[in-house]
Amino acid sequence: MKKPWGGRFKEGTAKTLEEFSQSISFDHKLWREDIETSSAHAKMLHKQGIIDAFELEQILQGLKEIAKEIEQGRFQFKEELEDVHMNIEKALIEKIGSAGAKLHTARSRNDQVATDLRLYLRKKVSKIIEQLTELEKIFISIAEKHIDTIMPGYTHLQKAQPVLLAHHLLAYAWMFERDRERFKEALKRINHCPLGACAIAGSSLPIDREFTARELGFEGVIPNSMDAVSDRDFVLDVLYCGAMVMMHLSRLAEELIVWATDEFRFIELPDRFSTGSSMMPQKKNPDPAELIRGKTGRVYGNLLSLLTTMKGLPLTYNRDMQEDKEPVFDTVETVNVSLKIVNEMLPEIKFNKDKMKEASEKGFTTATDLAEYLVKKGVPFRNAHEITGKIVLYCIEKGKNLTDLSMKEFKKFSRKIERDVYEILTPEGSIKVKISYGSSSKKSVKEQIKLLRKRLRG
Amino acid sequence: MKKPWGGRFKEGTAKTLEEFSQSISFDHKLWREDIETSSAHAKMLHKQGIIDAFELEQILQGLKEIAKEIEQGRFQFKEELEDVHMNIEKALIEKIGSAGAKLHTARSRNDQVATDLRLYLRKKVSKIIEQLTELEKIFISIAEKHIDTIMPGYTHLQKAQPVLLAHHLLAYAWMFERDRERFKEALKRINHCPLGACAIAGSSLPIDREFTARELGFEGVIPNSMDAVSDRDFVLDVLYCGAMVMMHLSRLAEELIVWATDEFRFIELPDRFSTGSSMMPQKKNPDPAELIRGKTGRVYGNLLSLLTTMKGLPLTYNRDMQEDKEPVFDTVETVNVSLKIVNEMLPEIKFNKDKMKEASEKGFTTATDLAEYLVKKGVPFRNAHEITGKIVLYCIEKGKNLTDLSMKEFKKFSRKIERDVYEILTPEGSIKVKISYGSSSKKSVKEQIKLLRKRLRG
Amino acid sequence: MKKPWGGRFKEGTAKTLEEFSQSISFDHKLWREDIETSSAHAKMLHKQGIIDAFELEQILQGLKEIAKEIEQGRFQFKEELEDVHMNIEKALIEKIGSAGAKLHTARSRNDQVATDLRLYLRKKVSKIIEQLTELEKIFISIAEKHIDTIMPGYTHLQKAQPVLLAHHLLAYAWMFERDRERFKEALKRINHCPLGACAIAGSSLPIDREFTARELGFEGVIPNSMDAVSDRDFVLDVLYCGAMVMMHLSRLAEELIVWATDEFRFIELPDRFSTGSSMMPQKKNPDPAELIRGKTGRVYGNLLSLLTTMKGLPLTYNRDMQEDKEPVFDTVETVNVSLKIVNEMLPEIKFNKDKMKEASEKGFTTATDLAEYLVKKGVPFRNAHEITGKIVLYCIEKGKNLTDLSMKEFKKFSRKIERDVYEILTPEGSIKVKISYGSSSKKSVKEQIKLLRKRLRG
Amino acid sequence: MKKPWGGRFKEGTAKTLEEFSQSISFDHKLWREDIETSSAHAKMLHKQGIIDAFELEQILQGLKEIAKEIEQGRFQFKEELEDVHMNIEKALIEKIGSAGAKLHTARSRNDQVATDLRLYLRKKVSKIIEQLTELEKIFISIAEKHIDTIMPGYTHLQKAQPVLLAHHLLAYAWMFERDRERFKEALKRINHCPLGACAIAGSSLPIDREFTARELGFEGVIPNSMDAVSDRDFVLDVLYCGAMVMMHLSRLAEELIVWATDEFRFIELPDRFSTGSSMMPQKKNPDPAELIRGKTGRVYGNLLSLLTTMKGLPLTYNRDMQEDKEPVFDTVETVNVSLKIVNEMLPEIKFNKDKMKEASEKGFTTATDLAEYLVKKGVPFRNAHEITGKIVLYCIEKGKNLTDLSMKEFKKFSRKIERDVYEILTPEGSIKVKISYGSSSKKSVKEQIKLLRKRLRG
Repeated sequence: MKKPWGGRFKEGTAKTLEEFSQSISFDHKLWREDIETSSAHAKMLHKQGIIDAFELEQILQGLKEIAKEIEQGRFQFKEELEDVHMNIEKALIEKIGSAGAKLHTARSRNDQVATDLRLYLRKKVSKIIEQLTELEKIFISIAEKHIDTIMPGYTHLQKAQPVLLAHHLLAYAWMFERDRERFKEALKRINHCPLGACAIAGSSLPIDREFTARELGFEGVIPNSMDAVSDRDFVLDVLYCGAMVMMHLSRLAEELIVWATDEFRFIELPDRFSTGSSMMPQKKNPDPAELIRGKTGRVYGNLLSLLTTMKGLPLTYNRDMQEDKEPVFDTVETVNVSLKIVNEMLPEIKFNKDKMKEASEKGFTTATDLAEYLVKKGVPFRNAHEITGKIVLYCIEKGKNLTDLSMKEFKKFSRKIERDVYEILTPEGSIKVKISYGSSSKKSVKEQIKLLRKRLRG
Repeated sequence: MKKPWGGRFKEGTAKTLEEFSQSISFDHKLWREDIETSSAHAKMLHKQGIIDAFELEQILQGLKEIAKEIEQGRFQFKEELEDVHMNIEKALIEKIGSAGAKLHTARSRNDQVATDLRLYLRKKVSKIIEQLTELEKIFISIAEKHIDTIMPGYTHLQKAQPVLLAHHLLAYAWMFERDRERFKEALKRINHCPLGACAIAGSSLPIDREFTARELGFEGVIPNSMDAVSDRDFVLDVLYCGAMVMMHLSRLAEELIVWATDEFRFIELPDRFSTGSSMMPQKKNPDPAELIRGKTGRVYGNLLSLLTTMKGLPLTYNRDMQEDKEPVFDTVETVNVSLKIVNEMLPEIKFNKDKMKEASEKGFTTATDLAEYLVKKGVPFRNAHEITGKIVLYCIEKGKNLTDLSMKEFKKFSRKIERDVYEILTPEGSIKVKISYGSSSKKSVKEQIKLLRKRLRG
Repeated sequence: MKKPWGGRFKEGTAKTLEEFSQSISFDHKLWREDIETSSAHAKMLHKQGIIDAFELEQILQGLKEIAKEIEQGRFQFKEELEDVHMNIEKALIEKIGSAGAKLHTARSRNDQVATDLRLYLRKKVSKIIEQLTELEKIFISIAEKHIDTIMPGYTHLQKAQPVLLAHHLLAYAWMFERDRERFKEALKRINHCPLGACAIAGSSLPIDREFTARELGFEGVIPNSMDAVSDRDFVLDVLYCGAMVMMHLSRLAEELIVWATDEFRFIELPDRFSTGSSMMPQKKNPDPAELIRGKTGRVYGNLLSLLTTMKGLPLTYNRDMQEDKEPVFDTVETVNVSLKIVNEMLPEIKFNKDKMKEASEKGFTTATDLAEYLVKKGVPFRNAHEITGKIVLYCIEKGKNLTDLSMKEFKKFSRKIERDVYEILTPEGSIKVKISYGSSSKKSVKEQIKLLRKRLRG
Repeated sequence: MKKPWGGRFKEGTAKTLEEFSQSISFDHKLWREDIETSSAHAKMLHKQGIIDAFELEQILQGLKEIAKEIEQGRFQFKEELEDVHMNIEKALIEKIGSAGAKLHTARSRNDQVATDLRLYLRKKVSKIIEQLTELEKIFISIAEKHIDTIMPGYTHLQKAQPVLLAHHLLAYAWMFERDRERFKEALKRINHCPLGACAIAGSSLPIDREFTARELGFEGVIPNSMDAVSDRDFVLDVLYCGAMVMMHLSRLAEELIVWATDEFRFIELPDRFSTGSSMMPQKKNPDPAELIRGKTGRVYGNLLSLLTTMKGLPLTYNRDMQEDKEPVFDTVETVNVSLKIVNEMLPEIKFNKDKMKEASEKGFTTATDLAEYLVKKGVPFRNAHEITGKIVLYCIEKGKNLTDLSMKEFKKFSRKIERDVYEILTPEGSIKVKISYGSSSKKSVKEQIKLLRKRLRG
């Protein structure tokens, strides 16, 4: 088939190349944005006297019809027309003739696709920001419900100190708050308009780039035409932000998986968010969490994919850059569905308060409080640590818990230990004495919720 | 919808989870292999007396019908049935009743999907090996045609020494020969059968795993049921081998792009394998090469993706592992189409012999021959290098080529230089004196072709 | 050796584990920050009445002495003391006794290392931001010098349209301006203080986290102790920002390498920034550019490395996270030295104006201007493109340039072409008619310089 | 400083470039191999009559002395001499004069470094293969000791079926057996000699590449000089094999970490292979496992790093390729120390047989056996699964275990269930009935040990 750019070619394109180089099978996703971009461009061409009012009318009408056809599944995207831009332009020309042939004035697919993609990502990123906001609210709401629930905090997956479940969950809220911030920064960079950069050098026609940028809701115009068509930073920013969200989700997923084991039993997953086995009748598996953890790989892969593609590319546009779309489509989609299922599932998880509490009573989780107790009695911390270590070793050997020790036993290790020690040896006591800013105390949890709420409003 | 594994569940699966966890949208690609696997499994169940002849007949017939329906696009894959295995099993049960309900005896989706995927990759990898064979043959054929074509060899993209185009191209043949070897090693590891490992622990039923393995053309049976269902090394091997092919292709692509510039003009790409610009009427771009170079990113990304997913997974099967399919499907497909287009395009590229020859005459490409000339006359190499370096500097300052220097000029740098020096200062002379094994000489090129042919037969 | 944390252990640590788990061989780089952190912490302990004035004095004095010893290479870091924190604490205790044993009150290595690393990265990132600023200024300065230099702009590494060298180089300035912005955002997130989060849950002692944060110049205090010790987002942000800088540098490097070929000869690299060959006497290679392009790999690898490490880690601190340091040390170092050499080398590169100009006259680079010329005469762009394409094909077949065509020849293709067409067919003419915002015109270059200067001041 | 390759240069190298481009700070590791290579090369030069016997003697003697100096730490590597090759060559020339100046005859650093690196990796890979062999033997030995130990097998980290600990551990033996195979394949590709390929094109001197290859213990000679100097596949193969070992180790590490939790308590780690906390006196953490899991990231990063670097490099040698060394040095080192510590630690781990057994009695792990029991009684599997699922649900609601159910209760679900059912409802019974090849039975474990032993001998 003769291509719209084929004037200087003597032979048609090889079928293999058409199949190989087409992007319509995935960039058709940009059809809405492509039509938005074309409409704004046409308005500008008219405003600048490059096309007349009738031509503008024809173009806008034609584009509207094409939009409707696509929406209703009546539009036939053709591989030999390569991409969404050519498919739509060609259909427009067939519909309205020479006015359509004027649409591509002072633009090229190089600036057009960059504009479309920015518009697309603006929508998708805005949606993800909303989902992150919702997720943070969910954490806040669970935290409020569980402000008294005590569990063991872990380091190295070994019991460390008693903490509030609320405090633990708010740690995630803060992670996702950083994700939200990062996405907002990415969004700012996305929101600049390359349209009118044309193929590489701008145009000799009197176009008004400020106008199209405003029409399309961009914050500003990209000031260098070569940068405008060769930049994919805005895509990489999204891929990176997505990778970070998935990294955080993978940590949460890991915990849910561990907590749902028969050995931990800190949580009970709803049947609705579990699946069974085709062979083992008793199975109830935490599939959503596993899938999220697994999907982290694909989102990391997408980031690496485009970083690799962009490495060493000379200016300006190179066809390699067509490979930007599939990874970013996949990343925004994966992040979107992952957040969607987390946002639905989290509120339905049942936390086994008793089991958590019980777990926090084992494993000498209040040993640090004992050491700090000794500090308050004047023992230098390094010695207090040593003394407490020895008490723990004694307990292990005797098969006892710290709370089981008699005053007499304590005194063998340090004469500074008094009756009041028993107050801090239970998980509740341990939580109660925490007074530092940001610690695992009720007060701190409440402050955090206030801070987070303020940021979510802001 | 009530799931086939739903006996112990009180609630149905959330719609969101069905969408999120389904794999049918991509694993439907395995339908042929799934039916092969099930057929072999059924035959074994019969042979072992677990199902009777009539049941076997029903199952085989039912599976055949399902295969036909899928082939003809009449089969409706359902998202709520999760994957290709459940879709087919359920359809079979609907078709033939209780015999169908016996098919899943002594197997689980865990071993089934591993078997399907191995069968699938066996086919795909075999195809890629064929394509690599073809590619090597193409290099050999071009090398034979260009056994006299001289070009500048480059290091650091700076002219280094004159080489034969044939020698340069055969360097690629050797790369792809290594790729072929690697894929063959991967194929050996793919070709072991996990079927009968069941969910994790094997079965209490008298199954014959050797039989199914033989039926499916596997070389052997995997001896540990837990390894059988939790291993994805065979997928990673394919992802790595694919990444290496793309790395090699990206180097070739880079060269084609550079050689096709107006500045180099070493090659002319056929119109059929070039594309134009929507805006710039004169453009003829080397898109296939750029796309191949760009697609290197996605294939690297796929490798990283699954490596990440597999990191830190406890035994045995985890749902994370469902994420193995999309990357490997994409990699085998990308490698396949990339090799396809290279294999079609390469023979149609026109090499500009004159331009290459001319380029090899500039840039002092025979300076090394001059240094070795001095060595032959008894000058230690390090000194010969220094002398030649000074001659080159002299030439640069005088705006001369080495061949332009008079005997008198040469003598100023070294009295060892005689008249016969002029013989080795031209590209032809330089090629002619190369005598070491594997060097850029006609003899070496012919030997390499012989060696490669032998390996391709082997 | 008995460890400072060894109270509850009966056996000493295996030598193999000491070697395997030590971090002192690389985290000794944090010694300055560790001492800063400890000093601030000690002041706070005193202010809060936890240690007395004499103890504080001893600690500060002791730390000062240790700092001097390290600076002068007299301090012996010991592998069996694991890390920089334990090495310094132990030395302090040996020096000053029980006051030293009080320093670790209400802190753990978990919050300490996070604080040290944030301080370290704050310095390193600030330095990189300065280097980026300098790099942008260099581009501006070269652009000003070359505001009249014309070169061919490329897409697909094929000549596209004439552009100003200044415009081309400013495209890079904008890339690095985005890098600067990203690093500044990362810096903001780095600049929050985890100290006082202790091991995981905060403390029962009356510490003042605001005070230490202020002492150390942090903007704020991290409000969740669990997040404080398990977060490595701030490291990943730096790894990502670094990867982006390298990606941009790799593009610049690729261009310098291509431009320095004998075929392009757009630039001449200074001898001082080139190297030769041990064997080929004539060689002068663009090594700095190649190394920068090559180092992109390691910086990408560092990003991936930590992303992988963090995947699926349960809260809070896990020893895996010790693996955060080497990649980020390597990334900040690599970015630093890469920018350093680019900043030194760029101003010394000689641009061959004549060669660039000459190159822009070939390859029909003004064909787009001809098409836009036709648009101005009323031809719809799509037709103008087709007509121009045919003119180009005609030229190729006749071996002519566009400027070689007679009026009569032009008229055969379109009667709209008039005498004035010759004005836009030369590179100079092409540049002159560019009027759109951000195009490759002198006006646009000047505007960009103004904009960039404003941002650099801001 | 004037460089040995500096004949054609007018200016010396910038200090910044010397620092930036030097590789001596890491490639000094190759000094042994460099001297081996040079010695073999010199012998060949003599054999071919290029140097005389006295010169050979001088060179060999000189190299021996240099080796001794390096070994004893008396050799001064200089940054301005760039790399290990130039440092040694220069020292040799200073030592022995003109004979030394002849050593670089018919070779370049391009083929030299490739030879050195292959020799180095041959050693390192051989060592890793030995360590993998040892690791497999350790698994076999633990398996033999625990051939009766029953534990719950997991899928999705949910209890699946009872398995033998021996079977579980042998799954790892098979993984590492594949790693061993992969490394052996890599080793074969490493073991071909590039020496004599010179800079790019071979030589005009009568060298004998077969001789040097044999001297250095290579299996063969690389037949294409351009491939010889531009190939880094052998490095990537090692990076990939290393990534796979770490992936497998990370899975093992994850299990050790989970098993060592207070909740699982399947294992007790020796004090010698655990560490404590600087703040929490009771802590005993599984650091080696965490570090191994964490180091997976760096080894993945190394693979990605070189893949990125090699992407799109034109033939032949480019300075980018200097970036191959640090990642591969780090990978072989990391794999080496990780295997070392695993090999030391594994035999010292205490498996809590009682705790494992107890765990396998909960969670309805024999439900699948019950379903297969029904199959044996004629119930189609899909129905048997459904029935068993309902029995499990009944148990959950009643708070009972399968073994708690009375015959009467069983009969309510299926009349096919008889008294003999109780035999398969215990973990021991479940293991006993497993009869399929590769299942979790004692017989299968013994067969696997036999098979593995055979492979380890082979």
